[in-house]
Amino acid sequence: MKIITGGVTAAKGFQAAAAAAGIKYKDRTDMAMIVSKVPAVSAGTFTRNVVKAAPVIWDQQIVAQKECAQAVVINAGIANACTGAEGMEYCRKTAETVEQIMNIPADQVLVASTGVIGMQLPMEKLESGIKTMVPELGETIENGRQAACAIMTTDTKSKEAAVTFEVEGKTVTVGGMCKGSGMIHPNMCTMLGFVTTDLAISKELLTEALKEDVIDTYNMISVDGDTSTNDTVLLLANGMAGNAKITEKDENYRKFAEALHLVNTALAKQMAGDGEGATALFETKVIHASTKEDARILAKSVICSSLTKAAIFGHDANWGRILCALGYSGAEFDPEKIELFFQSKSGQIQIYKDGTAADYSEEEATKILSEEEVTVLVDMKMGEEEATAWGCDLTYDYVKINADYRS
Amino acid sequence: MKIITGGVTAAKGFQAAAAAAGIKYKDRTDMAMIVSKVPAVSAGTFTRNVVKAAPVIWDQQIVAQKECAQAVVINAGIANACTGAEGMEYCRKTAETVEQIMNIPADQVLVASTGVIGMQLPMEKLESGIKTMVPELGETIENGRQAACAIMTTDTKSKEAAVTFEVEGKTVTVGGMCKGSGMIHPNMCTMLGFVTTDLAISKELLTEALKEDVIDTYNMISVDGDTSTNDTVLLLANGMAGNAKITEKDENYRKFAEALHLVNTALAKQMAGDGEGATALFETKVIHASTKEDARILAKSVICSSLTKAAIFGHDANWGRILCALGYSGAEFDPEKIELFFQSKSGQIQIYKDGTAADYSEEEATKILSEEEVTVLVDMKMGEEEATAWGCDLTYDYVKINADYRS
Repeated sequence: MKIITGGVTAAKGFQAAAAAAGIKYKDRTDMAMIVSKVPAVSAGTFTRNVVKAAPVIWDQQIVAQKECAQAVVINAGIANACTGAEGMEYCRKTAETVEQIMNIPADQVLVASTGVIGMQLPMEKLESGIKTMVPELGETIENGRQAACAIMTTDTKSKEAAVTFEVEGKTVTVGGMCKGSGMIHPNMCTMLGFVTTDLAISKELLTEALKEDVIDTYNMISVDGDTSTNDTVLLLANGMAGNAKITEKDENYRKFAEALHLVNTALAKQMAGDGEGATALFETKVIHASTKEDARILAKSVICSSLTKAAIFGHDANWGRILCALGYSGAEFDPEKIELFFQSKSGQIQIYKDGTAADYSEEEATKILSEEEVTVLVDMKMGEEEATAWGCDLTYDYVKINADYRS
Repeated sequence: MKIITGGVTAAKGFQAAAAAAGIKYKDRTDMAMIVSKVPAVSAGTFTRNVVKAAPVIWDQQIVAQKECAQAVVINAGIANACTGAEGMEYCRKTAETVEQIMNIPADQVLVASTGVIGMQLPMEKLESGIKTMVPELGETIENGRQAACAIMTTDTKSKEAAVTFEVEGKTVTVGGMCKGSGMIHPNMCTMLGFVTTDLAISKELLTEALKEDVIDTYNMISVDGDTSTNDTVLLLANGMAGNAKITEKDENYRKFAEALHLVNTALAKQMAGDGEGATALFETKVIHASTKEDARILAKSVICSSLTKAAIFGHDANWGRILCALGYSGAEFDPEKIELFFQSKSGQIQIYKDGTAADYSEEEATKILSEEEVTVLVDMKMGEEEATAWGCDLTYDYVKINADYRS
């Protein structure tokens, strides 16, 4: 398993391009396309929000009804959510535009949008964006990077990850990109994520691998507790690595699952660390929980606590808020028995044991909390299960960004 | 049912006092006492957080095991939470100090603390605070107001409410005070609340009236989604109005329940409107829901959404975030059928219908959203149930207050 530089174009046969279509932003790219040279088996996970954006509904149908997909068209700036029948019509028109130009059937064209809810897409700009991108599609790392930049909204960094591994002598690559900075609280997945692989694998197993992996990756991050209307993760496998098609949960499947987990975890952490206004990635690792589900609930409760997030921003070792967030999570435990630690590259200190504060130096705690990646380790002392969740600190800039996002 | 000026001393036979004990704050009062001239039937609701502060555990025992209580000692600055056996010992010592001075049995003395988690109380200061307060106990409106001011932490306003009504020719009064500004997300009740009445009523009915009423009052507010370790509402009824004791759910009980609801609602709204850093009270009223539980879930989901709260701060009519928050609440509905309105004393406008934006003026919306009390009206068009929740906007000052609260 080898981590490499790259994103959606890392795997064989996947091309990407970006365009400045002027949908909402000026002076930057705001559209991206991913195209596989051959039809790719598709899998997807989508928001569980009752209010689903038009592209979510469009993609859900294609992923459920069709074996393959071959192209994805993405725009930033407008989410095409709460846009009624008109919004659905724009998904169809986007796919038909690709069909007309590239001869890929419209029902193999996936679409994704991110941005303001409730505004209609400027369809002409979208169409001309597609026309600009098609001749520029390419397989280089740079093509992937341009696509990753074009789908950003309030993100401050583009987000990519890629891994290679061997399947019976063939090199297989899994690569992906995502965007996400606010309205991040995946319930299924969050944000937009696009992962490609050249592995040959059945649709059933591809779907299962994705479904299982989002639980411990995208579903374990939160920026602000708001589950978006547009959350989408798409996974395309075009088989161009040349391996014998994986059709059962053998060792090769497990290798793929591990590679997928590495890519998804890297993307999820990048999103959490680039949460709107964030100055730090805030990780909570729960160990020795009695059940896996409890470990997840406890870890997420801490990274979602506004008060804890504000304390992390202030580099304040306010462990009482962490204990409080564990306490209201819904999981049962004995507060007298658990232990808490802060960790970062500056060191580790124990902050809580035997039901009260451990004997630690506030100065050392502040030093540890001043790093860009900060971890709270929670030892439940109850069992063998563990889980990790990722969030970010709560800052003035989060408020600034969201007090007037639309204007 | 008549709303009057006053708080915990409004009802007959209840006295209060405050003291500057120097527990954490300088130059302000930080302790309060409430004493009933005669033992009062007691009821209480407490945090559901697994991590319970020592005074919560102390009060739960007294309310469960004893018919009556006669005094309450409250301090601000230190929460006496996560303080182990030492913290429990301080509750006992506080009660014993009252017993020594006032001859009220220690097991009829309730205690409540609010402030920083994890610090031990300075017991000597607490004892001298009690000694200062006892000679100053009084029944005036001013005594009640002083107590309401002394229990504040990051609150910017003291919070009181009182109501009178008649029971068979006798005037009965219900009055109360509360504090709460951050770590406000009651699961049972939130914050500290103290309600007194001179009604004569059985312990069973007093308990039931409180338990039922917190569901639609304190449990319907949120400032930051963090359920505190100290949440406590105490209700004392000393019978000094002279009415025949209420022992069944007759018309008089219903009058009392209505009075209690008025007082609790007024106190809950004051807390939400004075949320940490808040510039506005943000109310969400859900009507025509299919079940009462759905109405509550939907209303709370909106007032808890960080993105919606930030938009309210920016006076931005970002109805997409409201729809999104309804969508992830967990309640089922058809987004195409519901309607949304903004209301304030500046007027009302419809902002969403038929699955997309209504035709409204952004300028008018901004005007409506610039008031100090803003309401979102959500018409689910599904049934006859309704619920209201109260929160506040999310501001720079919330972050400021909480990034370094301990120092």
